[in-house]
Amino acid sequence: MTSSDARRLLILTEGQFQAHNAKTAMGVIRYGTDEIVALLDSSIAGRNVNEWLPGHDIPAVGTLGEALAMPNPPDTLLIGIAPTGGRLPEDWRGIIIAALGAGMDVHSGLHTFLGDDAEFSAAAASSGARIVDYRRPPERHETAIGRRHRPGSRVILTVGTDCAIGKMSVALDLRKSALKAGDSVVFVPTGQTGMMIDGWGVAIDRVISDFAQGTVEWMVGEAESRGDWVIVEGQGSLDHPAYSSVTLSLIHGATPHALVMVHKPGMANHDFDHLPDVSFPIASLPEFIRLHEKVAGLVAPSRVVALALNTSLYQDDADARRVIEDIGRETGLPAGDPVRFGGDALWASIHEAVEALPWVQANDARVEA
Amino acid sequence: MTSSDARRLLILTEGQFQAHNAKTAMGVIRYGTDEIVALLDSSIAGRNVNEWLPGHDIPAVGTLGEALAMPNPPDTLLIGIAPTGGRLPEDWRGIIIAALGAGMDVHSGLHTFLGDDAEFSAAAASSGARIVDYRRPPERHETAIGRRHRPGSRVILTVGTDCAIGKMSVALDLRKSALKAGDSVVFVPTGQTGMMIDGWGVAIDRVISDFAQGTVEWMVGEAESRGDWVIVEGQGSLDHPAYSSVTLSLIHGATPHALVMVHKPGMANHDFDHLPDVSFPIASLPEFIRLHEKVAGLVAPSRVVALALNTSLYQDDADARRVIEDIGRETGLPAGDPVRFGGDALWASIHEAVEALPWVQANDARVEA
Repeated sequence: MTSSDARRLLILTEGQFQAHNAKTAMGVIRYGTDEIVALLDSSIAGRNVNEWLPGHDIPAVGTLGEALAMPNPPDTLLIGIAPTGGRLPEDWRGIIIAALGAGMDVHSGLHTFLGDDAEFSAAAASSGARIVDYRRPPERHETAIGRRHRPGSRVILTVGTDCAIGKMSVALDLRKSALKAGDSVVFVPTGQTGMMIDGWGVAIDRVISDFAQGTVEWMVGEAESRGDWVIVEGQGSLDHPAYSSVTLSLIHGATPHALVMVHKPGMANHDFDHLPDVSFPIASLPEFIRLHEKVAGLVAPSRVVALALNTSLYQDDADARRVIEDIGRETGLPAGDPVRFGGDALWASIHEAVEALPWVQANDARVEA
Repeated sequence: MTSSDARRLLILTEGQFQAHNAKTAMGVIRYGTDEIVALLDSSIAGRNVNEWLPGHDIPAVGTLGEALAMPNPPDTLLIGIAPTGGRLPEDWRGIIIAALGAGMDVHSGLHTFLGDDAEFSAAAASSGARIVDYRRPPERHETAIGRRHRPGSRVILTVGTDCAIGKMSVALDLRKSALKAGDSVVFVPTGQTGMMIDGWGVAIDRVISDFAQGTVEWMVGEAESRGDWVIVEGQGSLDHPAYSSVTLSLIHGATPHALVMVHKPGMANHDFDHLPDVSFPIASLPEFIRLHEKVAGLVAPSRVVALALNTSLYQDDADARRVIEDIGRETGLPAGDPVRFGGDALWASIHEAVEALPWVQANDARVEA
């Protein structure tokens, strides 16, 4: 995408910006490269995103009309939520129809494909607007082939103790630090938000189960042709009652040399936001780390080389730093909160640990057939 | 399905009956309840299935015409293979067109849906024949909800050290033994062959990753409303480089009280029949059993209560029995080959072990909300 096709985004979170579902909006605001003109959410109209995310000066408007009346109006409506099950809230239909009618493109990462909706596609056709469904899977239907990594490549996957705690953010912040350190690095988006940010990838949770591992394997191969360090965005958690198989398709499809474990200290139970009565406790870290290495090792050896902690439940910086130190000591691993405090030190530890892994060195020494 | 709609099957394996891919044909021949008029496979024309599967008197014919000229001709062509990737062999198109043209229904479990093929659907429309694609997933798009088992139910899942070694056959033979023992038992088909045999289920490898666990959870709920003992057909293996995530969706979606581990002694490497140069060793049993219990236990406690061994690599019955005894001793678990020697004794051991599991007793004592 050249700068002349840069989008001017209006992000739609109507009524949900302050809820957990708005992680797509948060990710695009934090890590995206397009201009964000405004947020459309009547529940916070008149306020500014920088109240929640300092440094991001984005006004919130209450109606589509207000956004279109701005001096440099948006040209793209981006659906800013990722609800469980991925459906479109019924009361958003009117906003989408109006945006398409006004000629705005609509970009969505929902499971429900907006482009397949007769009313939406008719509205788009009559105004010349485009609908982009990021979660639409590729036509490629291939199972994994047991591919080996290119000698010289180092593949890292973020895993975690729950979904929606920052596996994508950590991957993106580590990429930033890797670039700063002069490493040749590629990010592999595996979810709709990562795709919206980086412009490629596959929403792996949308792929047919039989082809999930094959699709991840193929994406890693693509990334290896573009850089030496490959950071794959993780999904879900290995112990999540609903999403663990998606997590395993990443672990066994990417066959990462190393894992970075993302964890949110202070959280007691898995995220089942749509089912408040269902409770599954978060795993204990040391045991969970060992189990990841065992499970990954069923297909290819891997090691958890660092902990990326989401300390957002600790308001005070000193408390957050103390928690990081405690958990680092408990697990014997380098630990940090790259999103809050920057990822440079953590990346340096990861870089050093990965270079020393025997299976990385063995693969470097291998001559490709 | 009443007896008046019983099908008269012609099973198509053209050129592949003796290859590994014909597991669909084998499963339907062994466990199906419809009449099998003939096998269509020119590579073994004139021979009889009972050469390979004693007790199954089914002639092999070389052409569709021969089958249609039989005294009581078949009314349904069943695609008898399950190749990796699930595509239709290109040179089978002519046979399918001819069968549809002759008014025969065509039943398929391939990933490629025959009903979506313009030429096939036109041929079916003009003759009034029906195309059934067993692998077509349900429209239901729901993630798992953390459902608990009905008090009184006992859920068992077959897992294994590789794909295509008999997880479905073991489940079906154990069901037979359970029925004989007077247990109220339901089989949950999770692959196309099991569905062709039992008339319901979902081919879980075809389901969108995000909904795989939710779909398994839902099927188990259905089964629990129909019987006390639920035997879920497993898929793949937890260490398979291509299919492990499908396996995990069954383990975490079914949350089985107990697991039956299926293993094929004498096999060294995973089945990668389409990639002869790729080699992944089969896991060591005792460690693999412990790992299954750990991984299952991330969501709900489970125990491997028995080993079902596929001894087909040991021609001599005495050798097979010695191998079963050795592996039983090595693992400390009840072991048998239910497909070869009958499953009654193994079922009795499983029944007793499952009844004694503390989490089964705790669930029985639970009062449903």
